[in-house]
Amino acid sequence: MSKNKTKPTLKIIPLGGLHEIGKNTCIFEFDDEILLLDAGIAFPTEAMHGVNIVLPDMTYLRENRHKIKGAIATHGHEDHIGGIAYHLKQFDIPVIYGPRLALALLAGKLEEAGVSNRTKLKTVMPREVVRVGKSFSIEFIRNTHSIADSFTLAVTTPIGTVIFTGDFKVDHTPVDGEKFDLYKLAEYGEKGVLCLLSDSTNAEVPGFTPSERSVYPNLDRVIGQTPGRLMVTTFASSVHRVNMILELAAKHGRFVSVVGRSMLNVIAHARNLGYIKCRDDLFKPIHEASKLPDEKVLILCTGSQGETLAAMSRISRGDHRQIQIKKGDTVVFSANPIPGNTISVVNVIDELMKLGANVIYGRRQGLHVSGHGCQEDHKLMLALTRPKFFMPVHGEHRMLVQHSKIAQSMGIRASNMVIVDNGDVVELTQDSIRIADRVTSGLDLVDSSRTGMVRDRVLKERQQLAEDGVVTVATAIDWDGKLTSHPEVHIRGVVATMEPVRLKNKIVEDIEKVLTSRWKEFVS
Amino acid sequence: MSKNKTKPTLKIIPLGGLHEIGKNTCIFEFDDEILLLDAGIAFPTEAMHGVNIVLPDMTYLRENRHKIKGAIATHGHEDHIGGIAYHLKQFDIPVIYGPRLALALLAGKLEEAGVSNRTKLKTVMPREVVRVGKSFSIEFIRNTHSIADSFTLAVTTPIGTVIFTGDFKVDHTPVDGEKFDLYKLAEYGEKGVLCLLSDSTNAEVPGFTPSERSVYPNLDRVIGQTPGRLMVTTFASSVHRVNMILELAAKHGRFVSVVGRSMLNVIAHARNLGYIKCRDDLFKPIHEASKLPDEKVLILCTGSQGETLAAMSRISRGDHRQIQIKKGDTVVFSANPIPGNTISVVNVIDELMKLGANVIYGRRQGLHVSGHGCQEDHKLMLALTRPKFFMPVHGEHRMLVQHSKIAQSMGIRASNMVIVDNGDVVELTQDSIRIADRVTSGLDLVDSSRTGMVRDRVLKERQQLAEDGVVTVATAIDWDGKLTSHPEVHIRGVVATMEPVRLKNKIVEDIEKVLTSRWKEFVS
Ligand SMILES: [Zn+2]
Ligand SMILES: [Zn+2]
Ligand SMILES: [Zn+2]
Ligand SMILES: [Zn+2]
Repeated sequence: MSKNKTKPTLKIIPLGGLHEIGKNTCIFEFDDEILLLDAGIAFPTEAMHGVNIVLPDMTYLRENRHKIKGAIATHGHEDHIGGIAYHLKQFDIPVIYGPRLALALLAGKLEEAGVSNRTKLKTVMPREVVRVGKSFSIEFIRNTHSIADSFTLAVTTPIGTVIFTGDFKVDHTPVDGEKFDLYKLAEYGEKGVLCLLSDSTNAEVPGFTPSERSVYPNLDRVIGQTPGRLMVTTFASSVHRVNMILELAAKHGRFVSVVGRSMLNVIAHARNLGYIKCRDDLFKPIHEASKLPDEKVLILCTGSQGETLAAMSRISRGDHRQIQIKKGDTVVFSANPIPGNTISVVNVIDELMKLGANVIYGRRQGLHVSGHGCQEDHKLMLALTRPKFFMPVHGEHRMLVQHSKIAQSMGIRASNMVIVDNGDVVELTQDSIRIADRVTSGLDLVDSSRTGMVRDRVLKERQQLAEDGVVTVATAIDWDGKLTSHPEVHIRGVVATMEPVRLKNKIVEDIEKVLTSRWKEFVS
Repeated sequence: MSKNKTKPTLKIIPLGGLHEIGKNTCIFEFDDEILLLDAGIAFPTEAMHGVNIVLPDMTYLRENRHKIKGAIATHGHEDHIGGIAYHLKQFDIPVIYGPRLALALLAGKLEEAGVSNRTKLKTVMPREVVRVGKSFSIEFIRNTHSIADSFTLAVTTPIGTVIFTGDFKVDHTPVDGEKFDLYKLAEYGEKGVLCLLSDSTNAEVPGFTPSERSVYPNLDRVIGQTPGRLMVTTFASSVHRVNMILELAAKHGRFVSVVGRSMLNVIAHARNLGYIKCRDDLFKPIHEASKLPDEKVLILCTGSQGETLAAMSRISRGDHRQIQIKKGDTVVFSANPIPGNTISVVNVIDELMKLGANVIYGRRQGLHVSGHGCQEDHKLMLALTRPKFFMPVHGEHRMLVQHSKIAQSMGIRASNMVIVDNGDVVELTQDSIRIADRVTSGLDLVDSSRTGMVRDRVLKERQQLAEDGVVTVATAIDWDGKLTSHPEVHIRGVVATMEPVRLKNKIVEDIEKVLTSRWKEFVS
């Protein structure tokens, strides 16, 4: 391990968010002071049996908890704030700054987990500047993203300013009218940005990401022209989308029933803070909606990703307590499946169709746009901030590679950028960037009880149990090697070419044979 | 169950291929004679623990084996011929007709499974007509698809002709020069087609599927301009693609090493039959290729879908015996991931990049086109055959629905078509089509040993073991309810909030407590 002792150095240590989508967690460390930037969760892959939530391994922060001066939440998405309630069980965070919506959502999580007393939440407004420790001064720059109230950060340290984009796209016509503060980015660019850390989610996609508003006319057409009952599903956290759906329901004379806990939660907070504006009497509880004429009803629900337990999936299986599909219903998917969810989503669509619903889905409908910038958005970010050094973050390896190529195409030398993995320690000085070290990194898998951790060993055992099943044999043996009773054989999850009863008898026979022929070896 | 006794009726019973991609298996039954059209396999979903291959439940055919007069293989893809070797263990098939390539591949499978004597394979040429039983006369019509030597069938029965498209797209510039026999389709259309059963895979996609040849200039550019060593992966069965890759390797002075069993197998058969034409000395075994200069080598390998055990996946994990990635290698994915494989494929790409390879992948490269027709291809098929009745097949539910809408847009009445599920019995007469009945249908899951069947119960048990793990307690108890020895506790795959040793002690304590307090109840 080599250190750069001669020059003041900012260490940048991403613990999550690289090489996967999700669990964004990044450490800035300067002079024994740590600033934590976002702390998200990811969702398990299918091979992670019995796992509910994926966290980054926080060993490094746990061991350096005394250095933690504070944290920032850039916005309210689960992959940026979802981990905090878990981490606070392991260490305190003196203060967490963030936008109003993110902290409102976070406060609920902390309360539920009983850790509200382990930190202080402080909301910040655009262009507000806060100081954390002696080393960090952070300005909050309004950006545009799929959730309302999202920030890009300018983190000024003793060696210079680092721009941390958070999640963003460049949306010149945002639904809530809160425009991307391009001036602030440009101002930092003009003064001199030492390093840019930028969202790479869509770095493989050419062009600009369309404005969220481009979805409006298509939603308008669908909501306005559909006869009968209408159900719409989207990401609960897509505040702008939800806002448009509510506005269009009102416009076309439909009452709205909101179904799904996360959808209710986000709408409540977003209305509180003014990010969603609509009349109280637009909403009807689902049991009242069932008394209205079908063409007066819009059910807005969770489950756009085919999540097994979400409302739309339950409805498609016919096991939702309050909502049954009937012929003439129209279901709208205002979301694209993220990779890994495709099969679940199309299965839900098929089931809904079989129940008689007309289902509107798919990229060609224009009912969804991404909240992350594409290649041209990235070029604009690079052009405004004009960083000396560059570090693509928030994405899988090939996206980081693509993003680095975009930066190179704009004149940043390959030697002035690093492509990192979770756990890499990047040392940034005024005239160099390099991967200097590694700290412990990996996955913490939280099981369905939300308290236990599924260790690697346990996961491997579960995989093996799933592949092979298990046979248990219990038998009492006398000192002379004779069975004192019939062995109990239990077989679970085992593929056998013979009938279970025959198999059991065969096992008992074999045990007796072994005992007869080999007992002496055991006791000698 | 209602029967149509008054009129001669053709029963059409799909046992697989609906509501999923794969395991296409369709029965035509007339007057106690059965003709089997294709018999494929599917691959397991992630939830099918320890399952290797998915077959349709063949109860109906097993129970009606005496009616089976023969079978047809439309082409050599696994989802059309892969099940035959398994079924022949349950019942004989008097004769199987099919194209030369499909039957060459099938012969190998039957031999391997030791069932060659359970049927007779008879190759047919385009426009050949064969008779099966008294009821069926089948003309083989050359079509275009991603594998060479593929057929659409015209099955003439006492009540009229049914066109069974098999898999197809309309490719006017096929790589092997064997054009779609549009005249034959048109001729049947002019004479009168009673019913069309047509491939629905891409029924959701607008436009025409581009010609396989459209990939050529892009492959030419990549293979011609890449410095260093080149690895290309594609579907082994995509004979035309493989043909172009071999031709371009020769053109640009690269020797070819073929890696992966299925790739070697298909190339051998396709060369034998003249569907791939190239010189013997184009090929070099991989151990000789390693002695050639990098720019003289093209490695053609399996694993384009990220399959765990295929060559490309092994290479990406660094555990292929003969091939290690080195900086400067270029890897080309000439295939798109099918839904469900996306995550595996992008993981392989990421790992290859981390090892230093330049990876060329993604839809924008123009290195892959589908072998299945899109909406305009379907319109052409419907326009040529002008069927009275229509039955979309080979696709998931929403694709069938889309395909039926295309047919309706061309004037076929909704009452003249059926959207079916596996196991439905469609009764077709000269003036009606309807779903009249159902037979046993479902999945047979073949386990990794390729002999055992994974039953539903076993699968559920495996799922439960995977979610929860298993605890076994073995203990010897005296007649008076006292432990005669310390209980043996084994814990596997269990998440515990306490250390395993403490958990075991806790369990032992609890057993002793129960014995002390409750023993009398057990023995009384
Ligand atoms: Zn994010
Ligand atoms: Zn976000
Ligand atoms: Zn097929
Ligand atoms: Zn095919």
